[in-house]
Amino acid sequence: MALETFPKEQTLEMRKRLIGQSCRLFFSHDPVKIVRARGQYLYDENGLQYLDCISNVQHVGHCHPSITQAASAQMELLNANTRFLHDNIVQYADRLAATLPNKLSVFYFVNSGSEANDLALRLAHQYTGHDDVVVLDHAYHGHLTSLIDISPYKFRKLGAQKDWVHVAPLPDPYRGMFREDHPDLAQAYADIIQSLICDVHKKGRKISAFFAESLPSVGGQIILPPGYSSKVAEYVRAAGGVFVADEVQTGFGRVGTHFWAFQLQGEDFCPDILTMGKPMGNGHPLACVVTTTEIANAFTANGVEYFNTFGGNPVSCAIGLAVLDVIEREDLRGNALRVGGHLKELLKQLQAKHTIIGDVRGVGLFLGLELVKDREDRSPATEEADQVVKRMKEERIVLSTDGPWENVIKFKPPMCFSMEDAERVAEKIDQILQDLKRTHHKVESRH
Amino acid sequence: MALETFPKEQTLEMRKRLIGQSCRLFFSHDPVKIVRARGQYLYDENGLQYLDCISNVQHVGHCHPSITQAASAQMELLNANTRFLHDNIVQYADRLAATLPNKLSVFYFVNSGSEANDLALRLAHQYTGHDDVVVLDHAYHGHLTSLIDISPYKFRKLGAQKDWVHVAPLPDPYRGMFREDHPDLAQAYADIIQSLICDVHKKGRKISAFFAESLPSVGGQIILPPGYSSKVAEYVRAAGGVFVADEVQTGFGRVGTHFWAFQLQGEDFCPDILTMGKPMGNGHPLACVVTTTEIANAFTANGVEYFNTFGGNPVSCAIGLAVLDVIEREDLRGNALRVGGHLKELLKQLQAKHTIIGDVRGVGLFLGLELVKDREDRSPATEEADQVVKRMKEERIVLSTDGPWENVIKFKPPMCFSMEDAERVAEKIDQILQDLKRTHHKVESRH
Repeated sequence: MALETFPKEQTLEMRKRLIGQSCRLFFSHDPVKIVRARGQYLYDENGLQYLDCISNVQHVGHCHPSITQAASAQMELLNANTRFLHDNIVQYADRLAATLPNKLSVFYFVNSGSEANDLALRLAHQYTGHDDVVVLDHAYHGHLTSLIDISPYKFRKLGAQKDWVHVAPLPDPYRGMFREDHPDLAQAYADIIQSLICDVHKKGRKISAFFAESLPSVGGQIILPPGYSSKVAEYVRAAGGVFVADEVQTGFGRVGTHFWAFQLQGEDFCPDILTMGKPMGNGHPLACVVTTTEIANAFTANGVEYFNTFGGNPVSCAIGLAVLDVIEREDLRGNALRVGGHLKELLKQLQAKHTIIGDVRGVGLFLGLELVKDREDRSPATEEADQVVKRMKEERIVLSTDGPWENVIKFKPPMCFSMEDAERVAEKIDQILQDLKRTHHKVESRH
Repeated sequence: MALETFPKEQTLEMRKRLIGQSCRLFFSHDPVKIVRARGQYLYDENGLQYLDCISNVQHVGHCHPSITQAASAQMELLNANTRFLHDNIVQYADRLAATLPNKLSVFYFVNSGSEANDLALRLAHQYTGHDDVVVLDHAYHGHLTSLIDISPYKFRKLGAQKDWVHVAPLPDPYRGMFREDHPDLAQAYADIIQSLICDVHKKGRKISAFFAESLPSVGGQIILPPGYSSKVAEYVRAAGGVFVADEVQTGFGRVGTHFWAFQLQGEDFCPDILTMGKPMGNGHPLACVVTTTEIANAFTANGVEYFNTFGGNPVSCAIGLAVLDVIEREDLRGNALRVGGHLKELLKQLQAKHTIIGDVRGVGLFLGLELVKDREDRSPATEEADQVVKRMKEERIVLSTDGPWENVIKFKPPMCFSMEDAERVAEKIDQILQDLKRTHHKVESRH
């Protein structure tokens, strides 16, 4: 198979002409053409290798042969819809159920995290009979109409907040309204949800769901204070609502210690609805909603069928099963714990050297490096973060930024990321920050 | 690869326990387990063969080797997201553009017809600055929140019509408010849209889009009166709205004479936004929105990025390209014309024999057989249609019903359906209708 059909300039010209420009390229000033990938490595049209630190979708590694094999074996046999009985969908649901608390036992398979989150909203609405949703500030839950409505990251830009949507402050221990020095962060941030619910009730409205990522990603790779979710769940359930955990970015062992990020919140916490997506099919469009029998029954009781044409087809489920197998066989959760831990430690060492590093945070292979202009006032070093990403690209390491000020460099690599990769990344960041400092000093001394 | 993991009873038990019951099975009284398929044939766990007359998704035939080959070759190479430049997405857009009028030239790739229709709504809204949508009665445009809002087939059951949604009568020449004897069906039905727009304006509201399938499917395999769409487009555009053609079920040559069903409406008609889905990836989750540069530019101008994680990835596009190749190489559009024409002719012959057949309609391999209790009053023979479908299943032919009264037997088989298949289907329907008549007479004479 030819790796390239058109020269890069032509690809770029066709892309500009034929593809909606709302779909943006990485490094849009000088985009990269990737023609081949394996594991955590990408290769451009000239055979140059890039280390991929951000493709969380290619969870078990780009082009893993076990996934390709499972897909093509099932494609040769059958890819009908789920109106016919088939073993893959039930086997896959059974395998996923084994990773979850018993309470989460009814599955709906769909094609994207967005489809999953939309269905989660419908399930919550149908079960509770309520309309209102509480979300965290800066959250992004997907590209669909209903999800833009509940994504402050999007609706703020469009300038339209729906009256049924209520935004709670992001429980960010570094930059939030309560910080790491607060004696009880979980309680303090949960109290705000409680008072927000009171305000909603005063308006004569009722809470359908609290909807949040188990680790806010676009929000800036945030680790929620432990205990926060169970307190919030208590308040939300008392108001007749449900707790929806969006694990589209965070599930499948990425956090290292657990299979799901919500489990970081403690043994006593379990969401009522959980959505999963990106890493689930290693790039194949596959996502899912799991909920309780009570909520599923309420959804069935309205008598309106839910049919998803491609969702849960035998090929998607074969791929999903193969992903679970590889995670286990290659101990990728263990690898995330070890390599992520090592990378975090290396980044912490850099923090001791470079004052621009305000915070190093994260779990497993879900890490954030927050750059600040000043450690006291924590003003975001947005431009510098952008420079680091661009300079890292020259070193052929692919990174990007997140957070409301785009000053958090995120690490969400394929789970096969190695110790050597971690060391290479830390070393290059060290050099680049050193260079930035030098340039900065030069500029300063010229003034 | 083992064809079965669990015995059928266990599959069924697990399905009931683990999968949301809102996702219904075909033949729920006695569901079929399918383990293998090829072309237009399905095989159950005992190796019994079924003729598939309804899987329009498996457009070029179940498990076509060219599609499997294209998918696995690309899966071995790369499956990154569209933030990196890649040739497949631009080549695929270019190939699709060649099937469309020049005006439709900017593509957005997504994972399902529902995602496509949701994006179409957003594009229309952003471009026009208006909110209101006119839809056809009994329409179904997808399972997402925003699409249930514009699908009378769904929102009627949930008992909630949004104030920005306006339902126009289905231009059904057999059962609609104007029928085949009307001198100008297109004008009569379009006039209703015109007056509906006036009503909307009187309320101080404005039209964003007229949103309709090019051939209403769930509505009962309806063929719109030729000329209808260009008149409607004229009125809708005069009101500042756009025309969205939902071709999720009808595109890719199914109608035989043309590649797109909207082209049946005449040379002078072109929608402003067109959505495609089901057959596009032959079962792989792949769908698309195409629109004009003006509408795409308005969407870009809001400054809010549209990113679809899996949409347009190299594997999806490789599969899409392979589907286009097979349609051409095997002349499947020509086959749809020939075999569909023959099947329609055979069904017309049955209509001459069986008074229960009220109408035979359709184009290419998109056909409907409408059963009525009485040819005069056209009362729907819902129960009899259900009996025919069940009896056909015993003959190992898979069919189902559509239409508001579920009395329209639909034919939307894989496009490799053969003359022999058509003859077998017509012969069996003939026998079953004969039997039904006999049973009916027996019951009658007993009374």
